[in-house]
Amino acid sequence: MVRTSVEMEQEGLITRDEALLRVEPAILEQMLYPQLDPANKTMPLAQGLPASPGAACGHAVFDADRAETLGRDGGQRVILLREETKPEDIHGFFASEGILTSRGGKTSHAAVVARSMGKPCVAGAEDVSVDVSKREAYVGDAVIKEGDLITIDGSNGDVYLGEISTVEPEFTPELEKLLEWADDAAKLLVMANADTPDDAQRAVTYGARGIGLCRTERMFNSIERLPIVIEMIVAETNEERKAALDKLLPMQREDFKGLFKAMSPYPVTIRLLDPPIHEFLPSERQLMEDLDNLYHLRRSVSGMDILAGTMALLHSPEDARREAAEMRGYIELHVVEEAIAKKETMLQKVRVLFETNPMLGHRGVRLGITFPEIYAMQIRAVLEATAECAKEGIEIHPQVMVPQVCTAEELKHVKQSADNIRKDVEAAVGKEVDFHFGTMIEVVRACMRADSLAEEADFFSFGTNDLTQATFSFSREDAENKFLPMYNENDILQDNPFEVLDVKGVGKLMELAVKWGREVRPDLKVGICGEHGGHPASIKFCQKAGLNYVSCSAPRVPVARLAAAHAGLMK
Amino acid sequence: MVRTSVEMEQEGLITRDEALLRVEPAILEQMLYPQLDPANKTMPLAQGLPASPGAACGHAVFDADRAETLGRDGGQRVILLREETKPEDIHGFFASEGILTSRGGKTSHAAVVARSMGKPCVAGAEDVSVDVSKREAYVGDAVIKEGDLITIDGSNGDVYLGEISTVEPEFTPELEKLLEWADDAAKLLVMANADTPDDAQRAVTYGARGIGLCRTERMFNSIERLPIVIEMIVAETNEERKAALDKLLPMQREDFKGLFKAMSPYPVTIRLLDPPIHEFLPSERQLMEDLDNLYHLRRSVSGMDILAGTMALLHSPEDARREAAEMRGYIELHVVEEAIAKKETMLQKVRVLFETNPMLGHRGVRLGITFPEIYAMQIRAVLEATAECAKEGIEIHPQVMVPQVCTAEELKHVKQSADNIRKDVEAAVGKEVDFHFGTMIEVVRACMRADSLAEEADFFSFGTNDLTQATFSFSREDAENKFLPMYNENDILQDNPFEVLDVKGVGKLMELAVKWGREVRPDLKVGICGEHGGHPASIKFCQKAGLNYVSCSAPRVPVARLAAAHAGLMK
Repeated sequence: MVRTSVEMEQEGLITRDEALLRVEPAILEQMLYPQLDPANKTMPLAQGLPASPGAACGHAVFDADRAETLGRDGGQRVILLREETKPEDIHGFFASEGILTSRGGKTSHAAVVARSMGKPCVAGAEDVSVDVSKREAYVGDAVIKEGDLITIDGSNGDVYLGEISTVEPEFTPELEKLLEWADDAAKLLVMANADTPDDAQRAVTYGARGIGLCRTERMFNSIERLPIVIEMIVAETNEERKAALDKLLPMQREDFKGLFKAMSPYPVTIRLLDPPIHEFLPSERQLMEDLDNLYHLRRSVSGMDILAGTMALLHSPEDARREAAEMRGYIELHVVEEAIAKKETMLQKVRVLFETNPMLGHRGVRLGITFPEIYAMQIRAVLEATAECAKEGIEIHPQVMVPQVCTAEELKHVKQSADNIRKDVEAAVGKEVDFHFGTMIEVVRACMRADSLAEEADFFSFGTNDLTQATFSFSREDAENKFLPMYNENDILQDNPFEVLDVKGVGKLMELAVKWGREVRPDLKVGICGEHGGHPASIKFCQKAGLNYVSCSAPRVPVARLAAAHAGLMK
Repeated sequence: MVRTSVEMEQEGLITRDEALLRVEPAILEQMLYPQLDPANKTMPLAQGLPASPGAACGHAVFDADRAETLGRDGGQRVILLREETKPEDIHGFFASEGILTSRGGKTSHAAVVARSMGKPCVAGAEDVSVDVSKREAYVGDAVIKEGDLITIDGSNGDVYLGEISTVEPEFTPELEKLLEWADDAAKLLVMANADTPDDAQRAVTYGARGIGLCRTERMFNSIERLPIVIEMIVAETNEERKAALDKLLPMQREDFKGLFKAMSPYPVTIRLLDPPIHEFLPSERQLMEDLDNLYHLRRSVSGMDILAGTMALLHSPEDARREAAEMRGYIELHVVEEAIAKKETMLQKVRVLFETNPMLGHRGVRLGITFPEIYAMQIRAVLEATAECAKEGIEIHPQVMVPQVCTAEELKHVKQSADNIRKDVEAAVGKEVDFHFGTMIEVVRACMRADSLAEEADFFSFGTNDLTQATFSFSREDAENKFLPMYNENDILQDNPFEVLDVKGVGKLMELAVKWGREVRPDLKVGICGEHGGHPASIKFCQKAGLNYVSCSAPRVPVARLAAAHAGLMK
């Protein structure tokens, strides 16, 4: 279809506009991900949620370290299979072809990270029960052992035992051509959500005209950095927190430089830290289970010491000590005690940080205001990276974006701090350092207060994932597993509002916010950086609502470019 | 002030309006709750959140059973002191003068229940650490032992060691007179939030003109009912669930009859089940700790059996059995095993029902649609109670209200079921059974869709607690403990939006909803039943926004009546 459309235009049979309109954006989507061989007749073993599109096959592994050993180091294709994933599993994502989880919805950690990496993911396959200790998973009578080949189809949620052959995507010259035409026809700019220089590079390949969303928290997830982030979180004093942040500063600066260079000369939008910080810590349940095991171990080790004592009465003391040491496998009691103390401290911290509704909790700009040193570090890293790029003669357009804003006072607070840091950096480099300052619009109140926010912000970016959650009072993770399917079946809701932008509710709020915002600042740049930014019907709405740009994950950029052209050609 | 105002009017020195305007509603508030003796010079021991106004003194008790033993049965004044409270503690509330918790905010279970009962409560006094097993609490070096006298001031959050004398409230004839005038001057009707016939009775005393909110889940919390509710929740099949609901039906019917009678001839608004059902279950942490203890016990009991076996080799089997039984205090292994099995099943269920953000989860009408038999039971109970009251010649006006609605389809769904049940009940009694059908407006999307909701609903009731949470994306429990105080100190927010209605954000949404709703149904009745319904400044806004009524907890009704008069007299 893509080829014939381009050829027909070149033969003068149809116009460029007609060529563009012949190709449905949804078709592109299929072209851009590996698909299961259409000839496949095998029945799936289980089904989960289609959490990140594309098909992948690999050997099942049950933890991230194993994925790295077999996948990255051993050169095997692996699928990471877990009950759910956590930030500390991130190295396992890099090493895997795809991700399969038995718990969680389409905004679970596994789903969001897989999508941002463009890796297939099936999430919340609830029929699969995982036993990490045995390195096995069960589906009814079937057993998946570590190393068994499995295939997942992230486009529909199917899980297969064994290998199903896949068809690779193709990015043909005709497609390139069509998308160039699309960019000319489109009124909306298409940007990408990208968190690393690699992501940014890929986004450029897919034709993104900038980064609309860089989630800085993703930069905190690597194995080298997570311990420092945890130091920052468990810090008891501002000084301790500052010390941890000082270690993170040069890393973030390099991250940003990498992004700026990859994306030059297009703008790069850096979102300051957003998630509740306890997301970086292990779960209470995990810690309680670990501690339980450690207490057991302590009892055994102590028990063996008693046994050693008893034996010393019967035999020689030498023999007794030797035998005891052998029995306890050289585990010294004090080592166990230290491990216990560490876990107990962590458990205490996790409980202090516990939130009833973390989605609505201490996160985003609320963290930025209660712990100003975190945002200060991030802003400094952006501005220092900006100054360094300028020195190297690289054209860049940095944009700092504040998440979870609900009142203009929050923005003023962060802007004040940013201005101070700017002066500082400018004094150090002896040059002007320029950046744009904007806000996410993802809290309902931000829509209601768009007029006063527009006085502080150069740009608005709608975070429609969170805005949809807040507008419906639906927690996506809970809704998609518990009642949304039934709502769709009974036609109470026709679409899943997390996939198709809810024009009548969320869209109405967006229209009000654009209207009120531009009344104060007519040249306000407005975009969208939720997942809806890559959905054709939602893109159509975005143009109608007067947005300037959409930003979506890199692999969806071509779809968005074509959809933006279709929207642009609408009468 | 109240007395002189009334006297001056009666002497013809001022008009009634002037008399009303002389008395600030906030002053009334102080009159209606017990206060600490103003001469008190003692320094407080600790401070928590002022979660329910009034002062109380009593002997500290650390669990609800003990509160009942000493308080209800022993005739002592007790203060229930807990880390946090759960629905199973409800009998302890009834038996106590006041509640003190070391964890949780102003919408914690303790706070909300205490307010609805009109009992003083200090919540989230984080300096107090509670050790239930030792029956002690600690504040720095000070120890509160069970039985020690403590005093709490729920109006400012202070906690004292020992007894501080209190001043009782007075509901004088002059106040009665002033409030009668207030009712004449007011444009807004004042109703009460009441969950039991006792509450309703008290609300009548305070001059409420109906019940604007009856939270039916409160009826599920009593000790006799909770086990049946748990049966309903853990039911594996619809039949099992139905069987549990059949037991609840006659109880709910009696509840409603009691309310209707107490409130006749005024309307009674019954809100169908709202909270996530896992709120009725114990916490995962509690269950894990209980199980850990039980596993311990099992090991000891088994160990004693082994010991008994060993002894049998040494002594006579008879002696061994006897000694073993003595040692294990007659705990039979199978009893322990059964307890473990029960707790393990419960833990599994709690984990299945676990929600990441319960505020935004499977609750309200979402439950009503996924488990239609729950709402069907409640609606049947309302209509049967209505029919029985009619038969007894009691004038009543029942209103059924659906919580957490975000789309008109949800309302249609419940209305359809209600109409079927109505036909059923009418056929059984051979008479018409009438009721009004309405919706809570507490989800942002409900405001955006007010036009289509008004086609289904006879009335709207703004649930401004939840609406405020959703508009700000603030979870109240997390916000008030973690960042709201700092937001207020730094003037990022001038008021706590959970206490003073946020006119610029939440209020704007309300105004839009009223406008759009009345465009479709000009005679739409609109009210508010969040806590703001009792706050003078918020009541002023409610009148400006065109509401018909406010509903607040019974003890605030007099304040609301005077505030409504002030609003009515505004030029």
